[in-house]
Amino acid sequence: MNATPREIRLNAFDMACLGHIQQGMWTHPRDRATDYLSLPYWTGLARTLERGLFDGLFLADVLGVYDVHGGSQDAAVRHGVQIPLLDPMLLVPAMAAATQNLGFGVTVNLAWEPPALLARRFSTLDHLTEGRIGWNIVTGYLDSAARAMGLDRQMAHDDRYDMADEFMAVVYRLWEESWAVDAVKRDRASGVYADPSRVSRIRHEGRQYRLDAPHLVEPSPQRTPVLYQAGASDRGRAFAALHAECVFLNGGPKPHVAALVADLRARAAPRPIKAFLGATLVIGRTAAEARDKLEDYRRCASVEAALVHASASLGIDLAALDLDDELPAAPGNAIQSNVTALRAAAPRATKRALVDRMILGSRQPPIVGSAEEVADALLAWVDDADVDGFNLSRTVMPECIEDVVDLLVPVLQERGRYKRGYAPGTYREKLFGAGPRLAAPHPAAAVAR
Amino acid sequence: MNATPREIRLNAFDMACLGHIQQGMWTHPRDRATDYLSLPYWTGLARTLERGLFDGLFLADVLGVYDVHGGSQDAAVRHGVQIPLLDPMLLVPAMAAATQNLGFGVTVNLAWEPPALLARRFSTLDHLTEGRIGWNIVTGYLDSAARAMGLDRQMAHDDRYDMADEFMAVVYRLWEESWAVDAVKRDRASGVYADPSRVSRIRHEGRQYRLDAPHLVEPSPQRTPVLYQAGASDRGRAFAALHAECVFLNGGPKPHVAALVADLRARAAPRPIKAFLGATLVIGRTAAEARDKLEDYRRCASVEAALVHASASLGIDLAALDLDDELPAAPGNAIQSNVTALRAAAPRATKRALVDRMILGSRQPPIVGSAEEVADALLAWVDDADVDGFNLSRTVMPECIEDVVDLLVPVLQERGRYKRGYAPGTYREKLFGAGPRLAAPHPAAAVAR
Repeated sequence: MNATPREIRLNAFDMACLGHIQQGMWTHPRDRATDYLSLPYWTGLARTLERGLFDGLFLADVLGVYDVHGGSQDAAVRHGVQIPLLDPMLLVPAMAAATQNLGFGVTVNLAWEPPALLARRFSTLDHLTEGRIGWNIVTGYLDSAARAMGLDRQMAHDDRYDMADEFMAVVYRLWEESWAVDAVKRDRASGVYADPSRVSRIRHEGRQYRLDAPHLVEPSPQRTPVLYQAGASDRGRAFAALHAECVFLNGGPKPHVAALVADLRARAAPRPIKAFLGATLVIGRTAAEARDKLEDYRRCASVEAALVHASASLGIDLAALDLDDELPAAPGNAIQSNVTALRAAAPRATKRALVDRMILGSRQPPIVGSAEEVADALLAWVDDADVDGFNLSRTVMPECIEDVVDLLVPVLQERGRYKRGYAPGTYREKLFGAGPRLAAPHPAAAVAR
Repeated sequence: MNATPREIRLNAFDMACLGHIQQGMWTHPRDRATDYLSLPYWTGLARTLERGLFDGLFLADVLGVYDVHGGSQDAAVRHGVQIPLLDPMLLVPAMAAATQNLGFGVTVNLAWEPPALLARRFSTLDHLTEGRIGWNIVTGYLDSAARAMGLDRQMAHDDRYDMADEFMAVVYRLWEESWAVDAVKRDRASGVYADPSRVSRIRHEGRQYRLDAPHLVEPSPQRTPVLYQAGASDRGRAFAALHAECVFLNGGPKPHVAALVADLRARAAPRPIKAFLGATLVIGRTAAEARDKLEDYRRCASVEAALVHASASLGIDLAALDLDDELPAAPGNAIQSNVTALRAAAPRATKRALVDRMILGSRQPPIVGSAEEVADALLAWVDDADVDGFNLSRTVMPECIEDVVDLLVPVLQERGRYKRGYAPGTYREKLFGAGPRLAAPHPAAAVAR
């Protein structure tokens, strides 16, 4: 560790829908998340985040509906639990046009399209954002998404990671190998835009993917987007250690998170990894105001909607349980980070124990207090569990973000634990202080030319 | 025909690359198409088009590289012939944020992803643009694109249309059937966002596609995007007559275009179809200035780059022919609209005859003259060949668009043949003057609930 305490990093954790993590908040009279269909809602959010020097806006995504709870999609639709939902990638260009420094970490499931299509979309966004794009690599976990795509169910958990490893090998070659650094000449006098001897077709013949084509997009500032990943299973951590530059952790008790972070750092070494912990903040100008705000928000929280979300992520039909029933073992296809966080929090959890935690419409209890108290809590996480920052999920929008920007950030800055301006360069340069491209020993660097 | 001469409609025909139709123009000292990687280039273009009351910006796309000419991608890469190339969908949100009325017709190939993914992207764009999105339906024609996606070659021409028919049947049901008009309640008091009894899963089990899922996106202003299509083969025209609201025609002699338009209108009847003809304009304040401009532009035109493009669209390696060789028959996978336009223009064409037409770096000869002369020529097309408007391909950017807006549009307005303001409503309402959704007898209307 450095002698100088490190600065903490903040991402907004959001989703192109009504109810992301904290369910029911959209019913609050001041909440504006119901404007999620309009561009000004998103460009306004991006400007506020940039005013608060957030590193990034992290956008979640799913491709299916939450139909585990009660064996039906009805409760998800009724409460707006991540349905309806827009494609998050398409929010980025307008937000990029409205900002200069904010990064964008977008969740895209790699399971349902050829690598060349996904690679082109990310290269396009890396150009349009001038190097501010990141990718949260997911392979999906919902059978309902598989049914939307033409299958009966998801592939098995570890098989999805094997597929993802091959997919990554292909997209690295498209991004890093197809166009040499000196390929683009842009020479009006000779009429030569690019030197064809420096642009090569990528030939790949693997178990899941085949390709014989050049990348269609010329080199973008970062080439490979900043890579996020959230795997908590053993296979998921191995994948993260190989590929991820930033990991997203779901929470749980501090020793559990500290052990997870230490394990991920050890696996990835000597590559640095930034660890972002999911957190929900309720901040007041005073502790009393924060408690009042929590009570005000709580009146809108929906436990049923939270159970809909939890049923899908845990792979357990919580509607079928009585409050004092113990939660059964989660199936292999559940989100393991949710399962491990839950087990760490309450090894022999009942449904009642889970519901008791759902005070804001999710099983992630909020950090509540004055800006000073919340700063203390966040810095304790950084110092004790070695996390680099937080993915802040929203409550009532946009006031929950404005509270962070206007109340919390100044306190962190006074303590010397938050930046006072953005570092120059791309998203990767801002996060790691090195170059815009992935460097050895990352596998993307091994194929670069 | 009406007693009142109808107004003509203008689309800009562009592509997220350097050289779209007129090859070599990027080498002109005033051309700014090399800024195609930056958002301000596109938002500036969108604002200019809206100032000129263009109906839409039509964005082309391909998923492969032009490697027919000389059996190699080298000349395409050297001259920047539609490579490098960005994903066009991702340009739309930023341009939509910068405009209020301009429509966007985006080319997306349906062949390489599940219908649910494409349907969600278009619904997202229809929301974010507030009902200004259109889709140019294509199935691809490049074997190089098939090799990028994991196959050895394209499917056969007519099989691609069969696949497209089934794809359309699925996306219509996602867009029009899954969410009833009264599904969304957005009721804060009761906490009900949508009525689950009014949101249904779409079950489809066909030759090419399977699905058992609800649409993830709530109803957007137009539901189904405005549908463009450019098929000129018999099978392509049958597809257009069933699905397309607007067709794009590639040109050729006036009687040929008139016959094509009449045939498409007869096939689609009683459904109206808007026919847009591809055109390239070189406009001066005087006829002499226009001729000077043409000579100035011509010095930058690249015949080799134009042959690269033509080789790929015709499916003929033009590099292997001498100037006086007759062009061989095009293979079935070529773009039939290009082939039929070419044959109509020169039934026994030699390579020399083709090259002689490539005066601006494409086989589409420009209309050159003062604004009055160009207006005469365009109105003659409208009156003689029954086209509704034009897809204007670019020469030197952005001045070629500014010439249309500042010189041509006022002349057309004075003649009462061009609008003086946008009609209210969505893209579909602006084009057809009826409602925002597709109506009977369109097949999308048949599944609406």
